[in-house]
Amino acid sequence: MKNRKVTLIRRPTGDPVETDFSIVDEDVAPLEAGQVLVKVDTLSIDAFIRTTFNEVSFHQGSKIGNIVPALGIGVVLESRDDAFSVGDYVFGALCSQSIACMPGAALRRLDVSVVPPNSYVGILGLTTGMTSYFGIVDVGAVKKGDTVVVSGAAGAVGSLAGQIAKLSGASRVIGIAGGPHKTAFLVDELGFDAAIDYKNENVEARLGELAPTGVDVFFDNVGGDTLDAVLMHIKDGTRVVICGAISQYQDMDNVRGPKNYLKLAERHATMAGFAVFHFAEHYERAEKQLTQWLASGQLIMREHIEQGIDRFPAALNILQNGGHHGKLLVRVAQTS
Amino acid sequence: MKNRKVTLIRRPTGDPVETDFSIVDEDVAPLEAGQVLVKVDTLSIDAFIRTTFNEVSFHQGSKIGNIVPALGIGVVLESRDDAFSVGDYVFGALCSQSIACMPGAALRRLDVSVVPPNSYVGILGLTTGMTSYFGIVDVGAVKKGDTVVVSGAAGAVGSLAGQIAKLSGASRVIGIAGGPHKTAFLVDELGFDAAIDYKNENVEARLGELAPTGVDVFFDNVGGDTLDAVLMHIKDGTRVVICGAISQYQDMDNVRGPKNYLKLAERHATMAGFAVFHFAEHYERAEKQLTQWLASGQLIMREHIEQGIDRFPAALNILQNGGHHGKLLVRVAQTS
Repeated sequence: MKNRKVTLIRRPTGDPVETDFSIVDEDVAPLEAGQVLVKVDTLSIDAFIRTTFNEVSFHQGSKIGNIVPALGIGVVLESRDDAFSVGDYVFGALCSQSIACMPGAALRRLDVSVVPPNSYVGILGLTTGMTSYFGIVDVGAVKKGDTVVVSGAAGAVGSLAGQIAKLSGASRVIGIAGGPHKTAFLVDELGFDAAIDYKNENVEARLGELAPTGVDVFFDNVGGDTLDAVLMHIKDGTRVVICGAISQYQDMDNVRGPKNYLKLAERHATMAGFAVFHFAEHYERAEKQLTQWLASGQLIMREHIEQGIDRFPAALNILQNGGHHGKLLVRVAQTS
Repeated sequence: MKNRKVTLIRRPTGDPVETDFSIVDEDVAPLEAGQVLVKVDTLSIDAFIRTTFNEVSFHQGSKIGNIVPALGIGVVLESRDDAFSVGDYVFGALCSQSIACMPGAALRRLDVSVVPPNSYVGILGLTTGMTSYFGIVDVGAVKKGDTVVVSGAAGAVGSLAGQIAKLSGASRVIGIAGGPHKTAFLVDELGFDAAIDYKNENVEARLGELAPTGVDVFFDNVGGDTLDAVLMHIKDGTRVVICGAISQYQDMDNVRGPKNYLKLAERHATMAGFAVFHFAEHYERAEKQLTQWLASGQLIMREHIEQGIDRFPAALNILQNGGHHGKLLVRVAQTS
């Protein structure tokens, strides 16, 4: 049995391109005690992956020659851990490969009786729905009547964050995204109240029109100019939620901090950062609520699926360039 | 009767220098109904004054030819407002002049029976003690056992913020200031536990030694490199309190935002800004507490006093260059 994996052979200087990676086939080693062999089904393409390519990284940096990290779901092919049986669906840091050999302790067995397996890298995904949930509900503390702005709104986290804000009582949810197709997607398909096309509109001016009394909560996935534009529209008590900064991930040595951060002092506002793992003890609450919204059809996730592990490098480029709507996935194998 | 005032004749490009200002003598106009004539006693030299010299300003920008704004205390010479009598001590935006003609509504009568008049531009001052108090007690929410870092620590706000942090239960208060005289002042006179000399030490490295488990609360008056250095030492739940950013006031069009702001997300921390006027409804609580600490000798404020209104421009330069310890004042007249 052969495993096909994607390794990093060069640190990207800007957007990741296919020549930064190598596709390698290797034999699968025999399982050791406690290990589980997983046929990778679907990988989640997340912004954090890009940050591991920098020498300085929030997350553990990738070494040249190593496999690229990624979260994903798969099916157990063979198990030497009593907690897992052949055929079980599992979730974990399976990485960019077709067959993962993992310690059972690093895997989670999934219940696919109520929701489809893909939900665990989508609406119920740690880096997706769970991140959106904690950012809106716990960090942003969105409440009835709030005006909420979401950047990177057509992406996986952003599109759910906006919907969860509405479900949490926000009276007005404004998305910021690139291009008219995305803004139409936000308003027409996802129920955002308004959307700003940052590629063709002046974000700061449009926000002044769409939120004339200011923004209560800003959920930021982008950083840079977008963050600075929204900071001009904060007011007393605004919560700016720092979830990510995809505009800055290409060069983490030279992040451009928000030049308008002193608006926080002028307006008595707060900027709070988080990562989903800070809420580990609350995962159950979030998953329960998200499952209910998913089952009742109140949360929608569009998926953009690239087919085959060979498309993994291309998918990373698509994410960076925003050439997708909703959740970007790589389907590695058809397992069902 | 002549009033001597300081007007802005040129916007400073860096530190304010004497040639940016003009000293003008003018006749004092007769009082109108509701007005009060005040002999200016002492003016408070505050960082916000510098920001009014920029065309873009948080505070109302100063116009060329206009008097320079400043808060201060004085004594009533003549009153056409029933709320004030000749001889009353008053506080208000008296501006950089020797005799202020003000609407009574813009003045506050001071009780100088318990504390000296200068306290109202010092430990009880809005831009000084009150600012320190709300930043430490309300925004930073300093509690027993906290490690607290204060930048601009030898200045008026910083020196009180550090002392108030100790009085609020902080187990370790670390000040950041420029030069060995200031760091000695912080530790030997004010009771800080440690101090870092940013001019001669590596702030980030020293903080790692002095606060090896991280910083609970950072009270920032400085911004720029100092803010970035401390952001490297935040931890889960850290509150970064943005009070000011004196390193950035010379060019508000090109503020350097904190490039390490994404540490907020990595560490699940918060950056909260405030200005004293956001706490207007709590002034009484703060003043009561500060008066008690002042009366009991638990709060110390060193004063640096420049003599005469003609020294007002020089005092602005001293503030910007940190050529002072504690509260920088201009004594305009000897009134008592």
